[in-house]
Amino acid sequence: MQNDETVTAALAIIGNEILSGRTQDANLTFIGRSLNEIGIQLREVRVVPDIEKEIVDAVNALRSRYDYVFTTGGIGPTHDDITPESVAAAFGRKAVYHPEAYARLESWYKANGREFTEARKRMTLMPEGAELVDNAVSIAPGFRIENVFVLAGVPQIMRAMFEALKPQLRGGKTVRTRSISTRVVEGVLADGLAAIQKKFPQTDIGSYPFYNTPNGTGVSLVIRSTEERLLDAAGEEIIRMIHDLGGEVLDDERS
Amino acid sequence: MQNDETVTAALAIIGNEILSGRTQDANLTFIGRSLNEIGIQLREVRVVPDIEKEIVDAVNALRSRYDYVFTTGGIGPTHDDITPESVAAAFGRKAVYHPEAYARLESWYKANGREFTEARKRMTLMPEGAELVDNAVSIAPGFRIENVFVLAGVPQIMRAMFEALKPQLRGGKTVRTRSISTRVVEGVLADGLAAIQKKFPQTDIGSYPFYNTPNGTGVSLVIRSTEERLLDAAGEEIIRMIHDLGGEVLDDERS
Repeated sequence: MQNDETVTAALAIIGNEILSGRTQDANLTFIGRSLNEIGIQLREVRVVPDIEKEIVDAVNALRSRYDYVFTTGGIGPTHDDITPESVAAAFGRKAVYHPEAYARLESWYKANGREFTEARKRMTLMPEGAELVDNAVSIAPGFRIENVFVLAGVPQIMRAMFEALKPQLRGGKTVRTRSISTRVVEGVLADGLAAIQKKFPQTDIGSYPFYNTPNGTGVSLVIRSTEERLLDAAGEEIIRMIHDLGGEVLDDERS
Repeated sequence: MQNDETVTAALAIIGNEILSGRTQDANLTFIGRSLNEIGIQLREVRVVPDIEKEIVDAVNALRSRYDYVFTTGGIGPTHDDITPESVAAAFGRKAVYHPEAYARLESWYKANGREFTEARKRMTLMPEGAELVDNAVSIAPGFRIENVFVLAGVPQIMRAMFEALKPQLRGGKTVRTRSISTRVVEGVLADGLAAIQKKFPQTDIGSYPFYNTPNGTGVSLVIRSTEERLLDAAGEEIIRMIHDLGGEVLDDERS
């Protein structure tokens, strides 16, 4: 599926609370899907702790390999929010109060009769030269530096920031998906499915078993391709195979 | 918190369906928490696609850095299940049918009147010298090779495998957690909290804001330490700070 129009991305999820299992990440799925819709393929995700060296290493490994990198988490006012300084270090730049972000927060806290504390000023700390990513939910912005977008970890805020930055992303060909599910099990389908994958090398066919769901036990066969006609052709062969094996198609959906 | 008894782990989540956002991962949280309970700290997670080189690189990067590595996904019978061969490649070993796994599956399919197809035989393909990890849910085992445990991606099966391998894990000191929540916001708490963190360097204090939940808007302050007495002491200071700021403690829980 690699072609000139393949645009790739990676995500660095920053936070001890994700690694300890205290918090279930909700950003990966949103970002993976949202990128997909605009023709960008999420290719790698790393979850790292709130430790500067780990963040620096992850950001540097990812930004050189992928067209875009997104980070979530660690941009608040508390001592454990060290993402901006760490991203600055990854780029070998100083972290400074961003003048526009500083002005926005200063006037917001003033207008709301609250103190613009040192801690709150920390939320305007960014690598020198960073561009702001607006935050419609809670004012304090994220930022972009080169191909790296630094976003909040709180899902509502991350989503608002993602919507704000989306016009800046240049997508490639959109990958379309066709998902066909059946109660025929993987062990029975596998040989035929491998043959269909071989026949349609321009598609990526995945097989995802499900167990004891409302639909019972079976498998979802997911065809992904930038070409709608290949979803048609490969899908028809999969449906024929399911019928030939005496099975039934439970669902046949495109997205 | 680094000490002689710190035992670390990493997780490689393998699968295009996680990266595309089609499937929400449910294994990271379970593994993070379960390891925590037995004194092993999950330090890094990577999500990589079903591409051999990506799996090899992730497994090799992680197994040299952490005491244990777990992989989830890609061990079924279909063409896109390439984790076992990839892990074998990471170790420079051949992938072969594991005799014991082969015997188990052969007799299971025979007993159930089903054919032991080539595809099903693939589920017994493992690096030479691998040890089995039992699967109480659907027979086909996972495996261990050195410090790497290769598990299923389907959560029910992954959990059964994790329970089976758990006695093999050697944990360090268990990290205890105390979580105190309040509606006082981060910007107000941050300076005092940073001072408390500084006073208790043997603890790891995290600040996790919540927005528009049934508890309203506020923050959970999470103290992590191997020493219960430090949870007592740091927690008391946090509660005093909340009261000094005119706030209320909503929850105070340990785990």
